[in-house]
Amino acid sequence: MSRANSRQMKLGAFLMAGGHHIGAWRHPDAVAEAGVDIDHFIGLAQMAEAAKLDMIFVEDAAAIRERNVNIASQAARSTGFEPLSLLAALAVNTSHIGLVATASTTYNDPYGLARTFASIDQLSGGRAGWNLVTSASELEAENFVSSGLRPHAQRYERAEEFAAAATAVWDSVDAGAYVVDGNVYVDPGKLHPVDHRGTHFTAAGLLDSPRSQQGRPVMVQAGASDAGKNLAARTADVVFTAAQTLEEGQEYYADLKARMPSFDREPDDLKILPGVSPIVGRTESEARAKYDALQELIPDEVGVALLASYLSVKDLSQYPLEGPLPEMPQTDGIQSRQQLIIDMGRRENLSIRQLARHFAGARGHWQLIGTPAQIADELEERFYAKAADGFNIMGALFPAGLEDFIILVIPELRRRGLFREEYEGRTLRENLGTRIPARGA
Amino acid sequence: MSRANSRQMKLGAFLMAGGHHIGAWRHPDAVAEAGVDIDHFIGLAQMAEAAKLDMIFVEDAAAIRERNVNIASQAARSTGFEPLSLLAALAVNTSHIGLVATASTTYNDPYGLARTFASIDQLSGGRAGWNLVTSASELEAENFVSSGLRPHAQRYERAEEFAAAATAVWDSVDAGAYVVDGNVYVDPGKLHPVDHRGTHFTAAGLLDSPRSQQGRPVMVQAGASDAGKNLAARTADVVFTAAQTLEEGQEYYADLKARMPSFDREPDDLKILPGVSPIVGRTESEARAKYDALQELIPDEVGVALLASYLSVKDLSQYPLEGPLPEMPQTDGIQSRQQLIIDMGRRENLSIRQLARHFAGARGHWQLIGTPAQIADELEERFYAKAADGFNIMGALFPAGLEDFIILVIPELRRRGLFREEYEGRTLRENLGTRIPARGA
Ligand SMILES: Cc1cc2nc3c(=O)[nH]c(=O)nc-3n(C[C@H](O)[C@H](O)[C@H](O)COP(=O)(O)O)c2cc1C
Ligand SMILES: Cc1cc2nc3c(=O)[nH]c(=O)nc-3n(C[C@H](O)[C@H](O)[C@H](O)COP(=O)(O)O)c2cc1C
Repeated sequence: MSRANSRQMKLGAFLMAGGHHIGAWRHPDAVAEAGVDIDHFIGLAQMAEAAKLDMIFVEDAAAIRERNVNIASQAARSTGFEPLSLLAALAVNTSHIGLVATASTTYNDPYGLARTFASIDQLSGGRAGWNLVTSASELEAENFVSSGLRPHAQRYERAEEFAAAATAVWDSVDAGAYVVDGNVYVDPGKLHPVDHRGTHFTAAGLLDSPRSQQGRPVMVQAGASDAGKNLAARTADVVFTAAQTLEEGQEYYADLKARMPSFDREPDDLKILPGVSPIVGRTESEARAKYDALQELIPDEVGVALLASYLSVKDLSQYPLEGPLPEMPQTDGIQSRQQLIIDMGRRENLSIRQLARHFAGARGHWQLIGTPAQIADELEERFYAKAADGFNIMGALFPAGLEDFIILVIPELRRRGLFREEYEGRTLRENLGTRIPARGA
Repeated sequence: MSRANSRQMKLGAFLMAGGHHIGAWRHPDAVAEAGVDIDHFIGLAQMAEAAKLDMIFVEDAAAIRERNVNIASQAARSTGFEPLSLLAALAVNTSHIGLVATASTTYNDPYGLARTFASIDQLSGGRAGWNLVTSASELEAENFVSSGLRPHAQRYERAEEFAAAATAVWDSVDAGAYVVDGNVYVDPGKLHPVDHRGTHFTAAGLLDSPRSQQGRPVMVQAGASDAGKNLAARTADVVFTAAQTLEEGQEYYADLKARMPSFDREPDDLKILPGVSPIVGRTESEARAKYDALQELIPDEVGVALLASYLSVKDLSQYPLEGPLPEMPQTDGIQSRQQLIIDMGRRENLSIRQLARHFAGARGHWQLIGTPAQIADELEERFYAKAADGFNIMGALFPAGLEDFIILVIPELRRRGLFREEYEGRTLRENLGTRIPARGA
């Protein structure tokens, strides 16, 4: 299968400590305490860069991930680097790959956060990206506010104002404002002090660094609610999503792109990257064996606890493991993920244990198991069927999971003309090919 | 002059972009846009490490530094990296030197900030230090709050609570808590969830990384008010200060150390490092010529504007440059620095222009101009006279200002037994030789 085309996939590598699979840390090939091993992260980022991937991506919540430390431990993301300091350390060990990290609009201030991303943009020569989240974690809320998790609508109202203020901070300095020629330091005509006095935030100064080499840091988002999709349609360059089926992917894709014209944006200026966890083997049975070895590393209590947290319910252990999910109330957690799980349980008639194992493995994302050609076929199908502009690759176990994809699948995608041979530019924005939304947008 | 002694100086390098001298950016040897040149910072940090300095230090305010951009520009700290991302980038390019950066208790939250310093501690193997400030800058206040700069007493009340909460976050994980042996991830008995519900802050979770290799990040402070000195006596490992004269230094030193026993601490667990800006020449006249060349780079309006900002007054330009300082009201700015300037003006009978030039040069710190032996004599005197446990070296112009000190003065200090030949350990705390205040202290 080969088609001449100019549109190519954008690919990100989701670097989740020891691997995206919940049992990864128990695997004999696991890197111990991968979350705080900087050489491990540098190795992965350099590997992704050598393969010309668009970006690496780091998720976040400013908290451990489960109230029960034994479950948290098994989710293996109880310990890790704070993402922005991790990006800074990776910036000086890479030269072309985009560096995207998650930061919350609920527990930060726009001036401070915009300034830190601007700094990472300077450190990396224009390769920073901000995954804007509103933070649905209760454990995170407890580390910052006494009143607990704020309702979804309030979080997004704050996020809208946050994004506008942060953008104004980045836009307060034009390219070339700092002259620094021994006599003149700055051209005041190229400075536009922020004057943001909103409901939630104040910012009234200038960014304290030159304008980003890519104009503004790249904006990433993963909103799935109506409010989340509108924020993305207005501000995002890249959107992550979780889609189990082709149809789910197409529906999300069409919906989000259709929202863009009303914000005066072209659909192509936003790249939609569903997550996919590929388990690659040279043969199908080799791939299947790798998958089974990982699935065996999920104790029931861990899988069920993770499922409960994805559903934003306290506990599921009172229901029989062999039975179906009970009826669920809507919560202020991540509504789309709840719905995805509920839908899949009904569609495929799965028990709690089966759902738990399925979602614990790929954490709610698309699971692909097969040969390089089989995996490339599936990715290509979704790419051409307008379910994706590319993918967020979730290696199940690091470094092998990323290495397998790079060594086995990337060459297959290249043969099909679906992925770049060389970087188009030095900044993340150049490689993505997205244009900056107009000033004030 | 040589004395056998075991007590040795602790030395920090204050890395202020292009140099500590306000005219540095205009100098022919200046590095253009030094503030956002990571290779420049890496070079300085590696040079300081090769000389076995204890630490590098980065100051901060989350804002440009002067309302008038033309003055700001000339203060040459209008653009720069955000300090914590800078430290992270330096962490992976150094192996032994301490990495200290400034962060505000007024515009951060304890969980988030403690977590970022913990992350830098993990990135560096236990070499992070936090210079805790309450932020007296109005421009910084305007980037965060609509109500403007908070009064001094309120800022310190918040800082006390912030330090206690941040410490509780670091202490929430014991050494060895994360077992990660394939079966057991964490030993729950070694976790102590924070339960901070205070006036200003909430934090109720666990740090999401292992305990620091140095126990806790090193705490640095520069308080000069009564509230500032009490906070330092209770929590700091290192204190920066500005002392023009030996007597000022001795008075501050005695005062601060005398406060420690009431907080159950030994005076030796806190190192007092006054700032000094050394201009070194192989001969006295060579040193003097270097100084004069820098002083010529200070236009009157820049010097006077900086003096006004140090005095926390809006403007001084209505007073004759040849006349003395007018009477000043006390403000909520940095009171000690105001007093230091007023005292010096009276003591030495200086005009506004003279004061402006003097303070603009070393920014209020001790200015030393001379040969290596002369400079070593002065440092040695203050060290033995209990005015200092070491010094914070403020290179006037980088890289030459640091290089001169390292090549010319350090060997002289070593000959006198005043400075180490090799690092004592790998963590900043080991090299400083300070003990962690007890849990909950
Ligand atoms: C690939 C992917 C990564 C995500 N990473 C994070 C994250 O690191 N932190 C976080 O708080 N939320 C994360 N989310 C959740 C989204 O930010 C978002 O809240 C969620 O998709 C639900 O959409 P909504 O917020 O519009 O309800 C992620 C979602 C996806 C699909
Ligand atoms: C060497 C040195 C460096 C300092 N660096 C900073 C800084 O980076 N940011 C800041 O807001 N204040 C800084 N300060 C100011 C101190 O934090 C402190 O506010 C000041 O010394 C006055 O003391 P007080 O706060 O007790 O009134 C510094 C002071 C000194 C002596």
